[in-house]
Amino acid sequence: MRVALGLEYDGRGFQGWQYLGARRDSPTVQGCVERALSQVAGACVQAVCAGRTDSGVHALGQVIHIDTDARRSERAWVLGANSNLPHDISVIWAHRVPPEFHARYSASGRTYRYIILNGPARSGLTCGRVTWEQRPLAISAMRQAGAALIGEHDFSAYRAAECQSQSTVREVRRLDIRRDGDLVIIEVEANAFLQHMVRNIVGVLIAIGTGRAPPHWAREVLDSRDRRKGGVTAPADGLYLTHVAYPSAFGIPPPRYSLLAPGGMAPDARRLTATASEKPCRG
Amino acid sequence: MRVALGLEYDGRGFQGWQYLGARRDSPTVQGCVERALSQVAGACVQAVCAGRTDSGVHALGQVIHIDTDARRSERAWVLGANSNLPHDISVIWAHRVPPEFHARYSASGRTYRYIILNGPARSGLTCGRVTWEQRPLAISAMRQAGAALIGEHDFSAYRAAECQSQSTVREVRRLDIRRDGDLVIIEVEANAFLQHMVRNIVGVLIAIGTGRAPPHWAREVLDSRDRRKGGVTAPADGLYLTHVAYPSAFGIPPPRYSLLAPGGMAPDARRLTATASEKPCRG
Repeated sequence: MRVALGLEYDGRGFQGWQYLGARRDSPTVQGCVERALSQVAGACVQAVCAGRTDSGVHALGQVIHIDTDARRSERAWVLGANSNLPHDISVIWAHRVPPEFHARYSASGRTYRYIILNGPARSGLTCGRVTWEQRPLAISAMRQAGAALIGEHDFSAYRAAECQSQSTVREVRRLDIRRDGDLVIIEVEANAFLQHMVRNIVGVLIAIGTGRAPPHWAREVLDSRDRRKGGVTAPADGLYLTHVAYPSAFGIPPPRYSLLAPGGMAPDARRLTATASEKPCRG
Repeated sequence: MRVALGLEYDGRGFQGWQYLGARRDSPTVQGCVERALSQVAGACVQAVCAGRTDSGVHALGQVIHIDTDARRSERAWVLGANSNLPHDISVIWAHRVPPEFHARYSASGRTYRYIILNGPARSGLTCGRVTWEQRPLAISAMRQAGAALIGEHDFSAYRAAECQSQSTVREVRRLDIRRDGDLVIIEVEANAFLQHMVRNIVGVLIAIGTGRAPPHWAREVLDSRDRRKGGVTAPADGLYLTHVAYPSAFGIPPPRYSLLAPGGMAPDARRLTATASEKPCRG
């Protein structure tokens, strides 16, 4: 029997969804989730996720699936998992799905949000949950730069050196940049992402927003297909996996957008849910 | 020379603004702030705050003042303090004020926001920053109950048993309750608050919202002037000191509302700033 589950987590205490190198000092989200679900199932359970978030990256709408022989109600999966999970990870829903559902391969799109605190002083209230940039960001230059990245491109120059993906072509469907008071919010929707792709895009956009590079640099980096031509990777602090889209027939519930820290993303998100392509793709 | 400073902090790591009893295992906000500012001043500095937040309570718009002989620019106070403060406290601005300014006694009003996650599953993403209530809350009943608390009343029944205030009369000027997706947001503005007053009001409103008590119970508790007639004290997790109002002549900057976790409070907050009474009062 295959069960899909929705996860929310604060990424600060974890070295990411799975162990990928650098840090061995903190647990993985995958490890915590598999341990909790195995206790509910009474047998070893393995989890497959939609988006393998990096160390420190947060999730509002992570989706996973497990295969299990245990017969539990959807509510029992949620309550049982949450009583065995640390306080900074939670299961929001569980939903029995047909065997052809796959958390990663059935996903038709992913959306990430990146939140920048753009002001002269850092924030004790939102430490680890936003990225602080003191230099004023020029939104219009960032939008001009971002527009060049929309569409299907080879994103080799925007992926991590250690990225293992065989194909480097991804389709960016939407890249919205807006200011909300002291915050600058960047939302990127694509069929799928390469490792560090959002953080490398944001690194380039911040360089352009602060005037260290012209708007056409984002396109030049893209065309170079060379990671060494790109900017610094923006920190994980401000990054959230907000939504994974699936064909509606699977009945996967939407994320709890109102929980997403600053700004009220709900209207955009609802639009996305209503219009996202339902073409499944291999991530 | 008197200097006012604005603070943001995540209250989870602290036993409150000052030591009040229960916990000796974590530092106080006051202790951290005085240590950091003393390092900048090169001499011992004492801080007076507008609202003495409890253990676990967060702040977006805390205001303090210090007296010092050290001559530093406003920017030097901010940068120097932040380099000596832990990551979960920050100074947002510093502003030289006349000697008649007093962070506590010059304040004409305080606003707190209480955020409830009202849904079947807890949230790993917002743990410690919202209060989780699984039972559905009836907003209309809560609003009816809250309306009875607006105005100048003896709030004896809503204060902590250990509260030291000589007067128990406070003026609640506004009590807004609204739903935003899975969140219920309660905003209370008063001239000043008694210890635990917001959390005790929210405890009563939650009891009414879940149907365990009728809407007129909030008024009955108020009229009893007896703390034992009230409900449970709601947890600190969902509580934020969002704004302290001062006469505009002091030039105190507004809080960075966009940082406040969920929901987009900005329009309400701007209205408040524009219309709040400027009559100073003794808190």
